[in-house]
Amino acid sequence: MTPHAPRSQVASANEPGCDFPIANLPYGVFSTPGTARRCGVAIGDLILDLAACEAQGLIDAGGSFAAPQMNDFIARGRAEWDRVRARLTDLLGVDGPRDLPLVAMDGAVLHLPLRVSEFTDFYASRHHAFNVGLLFRGPDNALPPQWTHMPIGYNGRASSVVVSGTGVRRPMGQVAGAQGPEWTACRRLDLELELGAIVGADSTMGDRISVPQAEEMIFGYVLLNDWSARDIQAWEYQPLGPFQSKALATTISPWIVTQAALEPFRRAGAPRDTDLLPYLHEDRPGFYDLTLGWSLNGQEMARTNYTQMYWSSAQQLAHHTTSGCPMRVGDLLGTGTISGPAPDQTGALLEMTQGGRVPVHVNGAPRTFLEDGDQVALFGFAQGAGYRVGFGPCTGRVLPARP
Amino acid sequence: MTPHAPRSQVASANEPGCDFPIANLPYGVFSTPGTARRCGVAIGDLILDLAACEAQGLIDAGGSFAAPQMNDFIARGRAEWDRVRARLTDLLGVDGPRDLPLVAMDGAVLHLPLRVSEFTDFYASRHHAFNVGLLFRGPDNALPPQWTHMPIGYNGRASSVVVSGTGVRRPMGQVAGAQGPEWTACRRLDLELELGAIVGADSTMGDRISVPQAEEMIFGYVLLNDWSARDIQAWEYQPLGPFQSKALATTISPWIVTQAALEPFRRAGAPRDTDLLPYLHEDRPGFYDLTLGWSLNGQEMARTNYTQMYWSSAQQLAHHTTSGCPMRVGDLLGTGTISGPAPDQTGALLEMTQGGRVPVHVNGAPRTFLEDGDQVALFGFAQGAGYRVGFGPCTGRVLPARP
Repeated sequence: MTPHAPRSQVASANEPGCDFPIANLPYGVFSTPGTARRCGVAIGDLILDLAACEAQGLIDAGGSFAAPQMNDFIARGRAEWDRVRARLTDLLGVDGPRDLPLVAMDGAVLHLPLRVSEFTDFYASRHHAFNVGLLFRGPDNALPPQWTHMPIGYNGRASSVVVSGTGVRRPMGQVAGAQGPEWTACRRLDLELELGAIVGADSTMGDRISVPQAEEMIFGYVLLNDWSARDIQAWEYQPLGPFQSKALATTISPWIVTQAALEPFRRAGAPRDTDLLPYLHEDRPGFYDLTLGWSLNGQEMARTNYTQMYWSSAQQLAHHTTSGCPMRVGDLLGTGTISGPAPDQTGALLEMTQGGRVPVHVNGAPRTFLEDGDQVALFGFAQGAGYRVGFGPCTGRVLPARP
Repeated sequence: MTPHAPRSQVASANEPGCDFPIANLPYGVFSTPGTARRCGVAIGDLILDLAACEAQGLIDAGGSFAAPQMNDFIARGRAEWDRVRARLTDLLGVDGPRDLPLVAMDGAVLHLPLRVSEFTDFYASRHHAFNVGLLFRGPDNALPPQWTHMPIGYNGRASSVVVSGTGVRRPMGQVAGAQGPEWTACRRLDLELELGAIVGADSTMGDRISVPQAEEMIFGYVLLNDWSARDIQAWEYQPLGPFQSKALATTISPWIVTQAALEPFRRAGAPRDTDLLPYLHEDRPGFYDLTLGWSLNGQEMARTNYTQMYWSSAQQLAHHTTSGCPMRVGDLLGTGTISGPAPDQTGALLEMTQGGRVPVHVNGAPRTFLEDGDQVALFGFAQGAGYRVGFGPCTGRVLPARP
């Protein structure tokens, strides 16, 4: 049963459709004209200025909220996350003090909420993996043989992670042509609907993390759009995996929804048809009942659910350390594209259009891949009774290539 | 013609076999018992304490040499690199001051010389790519079709880059077994002989870097051993590339040999059999006449040359930005394994033993892959007339797995 909503002294936070009720309290980094970047919490249509709260003695996080990224606070650890969340719930509740340092969100600039240490992207939706494999490799090799046995992923590029609202330049690159490789602007630009899990604790080189330990290490989640150049990808990706096709930009939402806020919505994921090796066993359901979707130029294109996924972020994080690889605060783990079985549940145009063969219609016009000027917006929320825990938008507009 | 050596006031630097003559001046980070990490330059069997030099007014680098990594100095830019190199050449020359803060290298601990921003590993030796492709994919698909047209690579893991001398734990992992996947200690642990190029300037997201610009952005080089778990790699790597098989450790040498020190040894690389797209054109030879090799438990196993490579670090860096991916100071670009055509010129046991089928002999005993306790040492130097510009050792000992 989904829980009922506590109420906030901020009236807009109590609206049923609001992404940021007091049950959410997502963290981000913001600035207002003439002021420095600092940490805040979204509440309704306002931001609680956490740096100001610390300066006024309303809250104590060791000064970490004055930093221009969330890493310092995140590194303080789970006990601190819990203590500060409880304090914020009191402050913003109906009995909280009335003189809080609140800022209008629409007057603020939202920045990248964390310094991304390293970025890893997984491939954990069975529907997506099968659909894409079918297009790239044919029916016999669509689902790689190890896919049901391990959460496969690749290291992405942290330097190209940007915050929602940043323009996304159509990349140039090498693609396969009739007379050999061709240098061209990408002709098959795509989005990928994902969540990103944010690692909240370091691990030691040589140590492996269990799935329950990994759960404890995850601070929260963002929406994540892993923009992809499909023609560049097809030419470059064998045998070492995607490289420049995924390095143009990865957009994340400005607000980090904490694991604590999602906890009431915990659910099991997709059924498994193989036994897992013990290191991947979960002691509780690893997913959340999260509605996720995306729109193109304002038209909703697809809607699916995080429970469609086969591998949880905790399993991905545990697998990430099997070789002894050390993880760090601020590591960002993309879930992989989240797709359901039907075309209107797919998280990428590649799948939705069957590799560009079956156009879809956007505001009446046929479309296969992204065009210059297109505005992509991801959305996501967990629906409670009379309230929802949402991420806010994760948007990006396609800018023309620079030949 | 290779140049003659200038002489140093440090006698050991003038020995013909010394890796660190005054023509070299590689940068690193060191500490002595009870003192903090700081930057230094290797000269003969001594280290010039650059933080002390700055404190004493002998040199000015804006205080950057007191940092526990070289990034702050590197970020100061090429004009500063050149100015400081000239000043060091004066200080350490035969007419330099006699009271320099010099420290015995064998009494110092050498640390990771830089904070690695991100790590990318390429695949630029044709012999290596063909040999490995033959073993993993058979003769028809040995060399991927795009290989001669672009420097292919993958993003590695920066957090597992360690300095020479760090023990390397044999990883656990999933491998293919007769009855499905198996959880095991790696049975095919390997080394990879590489160079690593260190990026010395940031680039802007959305901007592409030309090959000549990329040359200007490279600060210097280290030896790099990209330890590889071949059995884990074989099971995991398709279609997204190597992941945990390459995340156990990447060892780099403690001394960064600058591009300036290598400049007299500039040479062309391997011949090309295809025309390159214009963005990959070089306006001058992109390699160095560098002898590179490795030993196992003290026995030299292979020796090759950097000019065997097909793609230069500058071409790799330029390609890395084709999609607009921003590069950052401290990015580390592995060249890929450097192999010549003959077995005793190969940079990995996988190639040398033809996938474990043909044992080699190490101190009289047959051997296919690395065993617990093995000590691997990479070496590399450019030979001048009566002197050499060397990297010093890059070593690691294999530690037993933790099941």
